[in-house]
Amino acid sequence: MPDPCLVRLVVQCRDRPGIVAAVARLLADSGANITSSAQHSTDPEGGWFFLRLEFDLPGGAVDELRAAFASGVAEPFDMQWRLARSDERQRIALLASREEHCLLDLLWRRRRGELRAEIAVVIANHPDHRADVEAFGVPYEHVPVAAGGGGKAGAEERMLQVLAAARIDLVVLARYMQVLSADFLERVGAPVINIHHSFLPAFAGADPYARARDRGVKIIGATAHYATEVLDAGPIIEQDVARIDHHHTVTEMTAIGRDIERIVLGRAVAWHLDDRVLVHEGRTVVF
Amino acid sequence: MPDPCLVRLVVQCRDRPGIVAAVARLLADSGANITSSAQHSTDPEGGWFFLRLEFDLPGGAVDELRAAFASGVAEPFDMQWRLARSDERQRIALLASREEHCLLDLLWRRRRGELRAEIAVVIANHPDHRADVEAFGVPYEHVPVAAGGGGKAGAEERMLQVLAAARIDLVVLARYMQVLSADFLERVGAPVINIHHSFLPAFAGADPYARARDRGVKIIGATAHYATEVLDAGPIIEQDVARIDHHHTVTEMTAIGRDIERIVLGRAVAWHLDDRVLVHEGRTVVF
Amino acid sequence: MPDPCLVRLVVQCRDRPGIVAAVARLLADSGANITSSAQHSTDPEGGWFFLRLEFDLPGGAVDELRAAFASGVAEPFDMQWRLARSDERQRIALLASREEHCLLDLLWRRRRGELRAEIAVVIANHPDHRADVEAFGVPYEHVPVAAGGGGKAGAEERMLQVLAAARIDLVVLARYMQVLSADFLERVGAPVINIHHSFLPAFAGADPYARARDRGVKIIGATAHYATEVLDAGPIIEQDVARIDHHHTVTEMTAIGRDIERIVLGRAVAWHLDDRVLVHEGRTVVF
Amino acid sequence: MPDPCLVRLVVQCRDRPGIVAAVARLLADSGANITSSAQHSTDPEGGWFFLRLEFDLPGGAVDELRAAFASGVAEPFDMQWRLARSDERQRIALLASREEHCLLDLLWRRRRGELRAEIAVVIANHPDHRADVEAFGVPYEHVPVAAGGGGKAGAEERMLQVLAAARIDLVVLARYMQVLSADFLERVGAPVINIHHSFLPAFAGADPYARARDRGVKIIGATAHYATEVLDAGPIIEQDVARIDHHHTVTEMTAIGRDIERIVLGRAVAWHLDDRVLVHEGRTVVF
Repeated sequence: MPDPCLVRLVVQCRDRPGIVAAVARLLADSGANITSSAQHSTDPEGGWFFLRLEFDLPGGAVDELRAAFASGVAEPFDMQWRLARSDERQRIALLASREEHCLLDLLWRRRRGELRAEIAVVIANHPDHRADVEAFGVPYEHVPVAAGGGGKAGAEERMLQVLAAARIDLVVLARYMQVLSADFLERVGAPVINIHHSFLPAFAGADPYARARDRGVKIIGATAHYATEVLDAGPIIEQDVARIDHHHTVTEMTAIGRDIERIVLGRAVAWHLDDRVLVHEGRTVVF
Repeated sequence: MPDPCLVRLVVQCRDRPGIVAAVARLLADSGANITSSAQHSTDPEGGWFFLRLEFDLPGGAVDELRAAFASGVAEPFDMQWRLARSDERQRIALLASREEHCLLDLLWRRRRGELRAEIAVVIANHPDHRADVEAFGVPYEHVPVAAGGGGKAGAEERMLQVLAAARIDLVVLARYMQVLSADFLERVGAPVINIHHSFLPAFAGADPYARARDRGVKIIGATAHYATEVLDAGPIIEQDVARIDHHHTVTEMTAIGRDIERIVLGRAVAWHLDDRVLVHEGRTVVF
Repeated sequence: MPDPCLVRLVVQCRDRPGIVAAVARLLADSGANITSSAQHSTDPEGGWFFLRLEFDLPGGAVDELRAAFASGVAEPFDMQWRLARSDERQRIALLASREEHCLLDLLWRRRRGELRAEIAVVIANHPDHRADVEAFGVPYEHVPVAAGGGGKAGAEERMLQVLAAARIDLVVLARYMQVLSADFLERVGAPVINIHHSFLPAFAGADPYARARDRGVKIIGATAHYATEVLDAGPIIEQDVARIDHHHTVTEMTAIGRDIERIVLGRAVAWHLDDRVLVHEGRTVVF
Repeated sequence: MPDPCLVRLVVQCRDRPGIVAAVARLLADSGANITSSAQHSTDPEGGWFFLRLEFDLPGGAVDELRAAFASGVAEPFDMQWRLARSDERQRIALLASREEHCLLDLLWRRRRGELRAEIAVVIANHPDHRADVEAFGVPYEHVPVAAGGGGKAGAEERMLQVLAAARIDLVVLARYMQVLSADFLERVGAPVINIHHSFLPAFAGADPYARARDRGVKIIGATAHYATEVLDAGPIIEQDVARIDHHHTVTEMTAIGRDIERIVLGRAVAWHLDDRVLVHEGRTVVF
């Protein structure tokens, strides 16, 4: 008989009366005790409904509960949903380029227990971070992007092989500076979180700090979002900012930005791993 | 037959299995459709449980629901609870002294519809703000605190009369600079929200900006809290901060602080009026 | 003989060796005692130089000093400069539309002594705020913008007359929702500060809060900038931000935004009045 | 003949007329070109004066300038001052205990070029971080604090030897959890920067996150300050904060706090190394 365990349920569907009651009744009938709940509706009349629950399941019969939920609640309400044990560890791949601050920060956070995941592999298009990464006991795959015609396609093919072999649940672009193709994003089979070094939608694309300097903004920022085929336009998970003023050079803004990027990406990854982020119509609900 | 309406329910009690299910079942049986929920537990094993729900009640039978909830759920779980229509307007009294920024700000917010309340009366121990206040159509009571022995007791007695006559649900100390007695707080019969011009617990008591300057802090703040008989020690509702540096004089810090105080107090009052603030063991849960 | 007084000098010019020494020597020879200085250079080699000084001038001979500075320092270094007594009071016009939060806030800050200026007139294209404004002892000019062809041109013509009659040093667009023509901006003869209700360059133009909601950003902001003929593209003086999340409606974001707008505009106007803002190549240096 | 170089001068003294002019004249006579200046006075009448200048010295004759400044300006005005080439690299020692986040962050910032210093040695009272530290090419000294009578005194004696041998200019307590004796602080012969994991003066002493939780504050923070013999009472260099709410456990607050601590300490150390921090009467001026 399985052990008692803590379970998470996330749900989204078209809103209509009776959803909460149906969920609560099924959980009560299964002996679950809800310890945390958060709920959002864009509009009770014809809007979209989001729910995240954590509950103790004394008998630990997660598979039975999943089956009962699927037929008894999810299907009638036409839900997108996920039900998982809280102690599940997802498998992450980190992709990096020359800048290593986000990469190292995630490795540190993992080692400290801030991220409930296993970092299965690091892939980089530069060879420089091998020693740093392997010191954490994580394999390092150097996948260079050869100049010229097929370079990028070949690199993406190679990365897809590595990711498949590592059975990845999540890809994190830790300042990976190559634009990934729509084909790659479709075939990767896992969510992809990117950190962009501006306060989106301002300064999407290249060189955001230089452009922030040119525009004379007084605050810079960073944005963690799910990658989609439109560059820097995917659903935003988290953003944060820092003040600058006229005396900051682009180099200094870049240094200040590194601290924001590390923190914003760390939060976004942790929340994703805790099933706190639900995506609908290009936006996120973060519970 | 009553109109359909939006209703709020807030609950706190000792945590134990089955609370959420019991509440959800009773609401479902009453035809309610939950549109917003937030829940917190300090510890599922023997901790304390907090819940806030908003729901549509199609039949609008609030009194029947209240009776059913009292006997069917609240009593068995030994709950502290409040169930109210969202369109109820509480009656507020504002107490002020010489500084008028918090006072005017709350009057503006009320006029703009940011506060779901009626400002029934303003009481001040200075005569200066009468024209400002009466321009908002709010009665102004000047209750001076006479120097010497019975001055304060007499003023408090007079204020209690004014508050009782105005049938007050909430008292807001909008930079009221007299310390209220334990006797007053006990007899006033309504929650009292105070704004303190420091980031508590730092600089409780008098002259916080001067003391912040003396200590050389780099950030100042303001704190909205429920007043209790221990000065500046009541449950904190909201805090916010602003950066300062060495060049700021106490006068400039005071001006910066006015903006923080206005915003922090505005949030705290709005959240209280929306039944978002639950107090337990000297702390608040703010949903 | 004039009284001793506090004087401000702001300077910008092409950078080259010897500027600071030349300024300091002339001031020392005039008996001035520098009490505050700030300096910035975009690049000591061929960049642009900015300086702001405050000093006591014991004899109070400001006109003599101005003449000496003009011929002895400003001309040889080809400077743009301004030298003014700190106790000079500039004359401001506030332009407003239906939203009154920025308008009232500036009137209140002026009364509190936070703005070293006289508010000479308020012009609004709505009649609603007359009583509020006149309560501060400030004249209120209602200049409606008639629908159809010549409406806007006629309104701008009328406003230019009012501004000229009031001998205005600064125009503040306190959520004035009409786009001013390039012709108006050229003829107004004074700097124009605008508050835009987004974190520029994101969401320039109309309805920024609705567009922020659509994009799913996690932080909103406001921007005070000098108005130029390109809408929302002028030099940024100040920006600030506030966090939002998925549950905030556009109405709630607008309410949160009002607090940011008030504070950002208040800072920008105060800094402008204190000669802290220098403009060069579409950006500001704020000392 | 020495190369041209960038030089920094920091000064503090009793304020009186003529200081700026005297400094500017001597620098101009030495051929220096001032590229950055910042100045502060607590009160032009009898207050305290602070100045920080950066300038190019085309001939590079720093020693001659130092001598001329000492006799010609510093002595007559009774100044505390420091004049140093900007390319000087100070030597830092990091002291750490079991928590490694501040330690690793400073090592990483040094490698990124964010800190203009050499990290000469790491001393820790735990053995755990040796591999991490040595991977940065920095020596690691394990100095345990033996339980019982002379344990602490012995450890301090050993640390003083290590620090002296490493010719240290600055000691950074990177979450070193032993209280240093007044005797140690007096004999160490270098400034000591500490990071305290609260927003001082709130929650000085042990377990600040647990106490913040107990008090129910809505914002936590960290404080970098110079260590003095009164625990957590030294001059504050930098502070920053993060929002929390009722659902954060002490463990989660500690994780959030780690990010603030790293950033606050990083800034404080960088500013100290750039001679931006001047101490007077228990407070700092940070230029």
